[in-house]
Amino acid sequence: MKVKDIQEQGLLKKLQRFCPQDIVGDDAAILPTQANKSLVVTTDMLVDGVHFSDRTTSAADVGWRAAAANLSDVAAMGAFPIGITVALGIPGDTPVSWVEQLYQGIAECLQPYNTPIVGGDITRSPVITVSITAFGEVEPHNMILRSNCQAENVIVATGVHGASKAGLELLLHPELGQTLTEAERNSLILAHQRPQPRLDILPILCECLSSNISNVAVLVGGMDSSDGLADAIVQICQASQVGARIERSQIPIPTTLTKFISSEQALKWALYGGEDFELILCLPPIIGENLVKKIGVGAAIVGKTTDNTDILLTDSQGIYPNEQLTLSQGFQHL
Amino acid sequence: MKVKDIQEQGLLKKLQRFCPQDIVGDDAAILPTQANKSLVVTTDMLVDGVHFSDRTTSAADVGWRAAAANLSDVAAMGAFPIGITVALGIPGDTPVSWVEQLYQGIAECLQPYNTPIVGGDITRSPVITVSITAFGEVEPHNMILRSNCQAENVIVATGVHGASKAGLELLLHPELGQTLTEAERNSLILAHQRPQPRLDILPILCECLSSNISNVAVLVGGMDSSDGLADAIVQICQASQVGARIERSQIPIPTTLTKFISSEQALKWALYGGEDFELILCLPPIIGENLVKKIGVGAAIVGKTTDNTDILLTDSQGIYPNEQLTLSQGFQHL
Repeated sequence: MKVKDIQEQGLLKKLQRFCPQDIVGDDAAILPTQANKSLVVTTDMLVDGVHFSDRTTSAADVGWRAAAANLSDVAAMGAFPIGITVALGIPGDTPVSWVEQLYQGIAECLQPYNTPIVGGDITRSPVITVSITAFGEVEPHNMILRSNCQAENVIVATGVHGASKAGLELLLHPELGQTLTEAERNSLILAHQRPQPRLDILPILCECLSSNISNVAVLVGGMDSSDGLADAIVQICQASQVGARIERSQIPIPTTLTKFISSEQALKWALYGGEDFELILCLPPIIGENLVKKIGVGAAIVGKTTDNTDILLTDSQGIYPNEQLTLSQGFQHL
Repeated sequence: MKVKDIQEQGLLKKLQRFCPQDIVGDDAAILPTQANKSLVVTTDMLVDGVHFSDRTTSAADVGWRAAAANLSDVAAMGAFPIGITVALGIPGDTPVSWVEQLYQGIAECLQPYNTPIVGGDITRSPVITVSITAFGEVEPHNMILRSNCQAENVIVATGVHGASKAGLELLLHPELGQTLTEAERNSLILAHQRPQPRLDILPILCECLSSNISNVAVLVGGMDSSDGLADAIVQICQASQVGARIERSQIPIPTTLTKFISSEQALKWALYGGEDFELILCLPPIIGENLVKKIGVGAAIVGKTTDNTDILLTDSQGIYPNEQLTLSQGFQHL
């Protein structure tokens, strides 16, 4: 069954089960907000053939990834999500099941955070286009800003990097990674197809901040690593006008990567692969160390910020010379 | 100059002037909200060749109309806009000037309401796609809901209907309307290209409601007439489980229409043409009459609601038999 067979009315009926009935159905959705909180807003557009393809991404995974990318941006502001809208452009011959699975994937990603789909739009388009806008709330003193970083902060990565890129390469080149077990392979592929927005970090961060013994309020600098770990570090340093020294050996990389690629290549994927959707947070050392301990597996202090503007990859073992970290070419090729 | 010549970085630099610098530049935008207000959210996707074409709509008009449609939905909830996001998909050979003019049109529409563009996304797409999400705020007791209408309300149209459809027809068929003056023609075309969201109605409505002498809080039923006057009336009646009697002669139609089409045709455009973006409001008679007086030119009471479920177009002159009003085929053809 194609969407042109049931038209917008029929499709909306099938999608209703993914949306709370008390919120949708008017000109706009109404969401209660809490006093003393600021609204956080982020938007993303994904286009078939540009951001996803049938080869590596099912409809459910397209939905999950789109929702996850937006929730990750909300988390990267220190905010909790309160709702998303989904605008969808589809050709008439799109299978109805594709659209249902897209919404299923979105709903599955949102479910642990009780975040509703509060509205949307469905329209004809020659190419499948998914545009998601997410809203969140944050108490102003909990905001995480790229510009909040100070010199002599430690730089925390909340989890491993390079897994998403590895998963994508395994999907694109099934001949790769013959040395991996089935479970190892699936774990990397899942990191690509079902990335987890790190909203779970926020309460842990709050706890660490509230046990801060100094009387000075701590500003948290940070962003997510959707465009790569190196990109996040450079963006934060530039926005905060600080430098950084990142220690090669401290970057958390899944051990499975070096079972099928060189450690040089693994480091490159970790720094520049992107789409790991971890948080990169800059904090005073004691708080950062406490945070890493509380998060546990995967989290690491990858380096520290400095009062100059060099952003260097260092090697404490003295094998590799210092290297400049660079922005990813994360900009969309037009 | 094409967008592929300057890529996303270059394009973002050119578009920065349309966005407040203190809001954008992080993973998400942060907007302060006011205590005791609810958040209102609406989203729309427009696709080249489906919702607009070079023949009738310049880039600036595409931007204006997209922004106006979203602001109209916000107004139709009784809310004031606080920001919008713009996600844009564009082919590489789109002229840079087209994108700048699109943003110019959006910004011009937003300007009277001090509503900022707080974020967005730009991506490659084979077809120009504009997805706007608008946010507004409303005090819960000021919400306008489709389901708030009562029997024995009067139904207020805040302005004339049929003008936008007439403007579109004049653009598509320049041979039409030879009997119109240049000013009359331009006025109708402008109604199509630059529709005004009726945010100006909200303070007038507030004033009328606060002078309500009864002690019972008045619920305002309503929506905008973006899908046509008839569609709005039917939607409101169905959501509120009331009927309506709409009087033919009371429907406000620009007098210029009958200079080039029959009055039958003019009535059809007024009822079913759509995109007039007026508010259709259901109120107790005294308040509705007061509102129409205060709004002035164009506003009218077009009928009243009833306690059955018939939605009828009546003729007090007895020439035409009663007619059922119907939903527009406002659903997108997929």
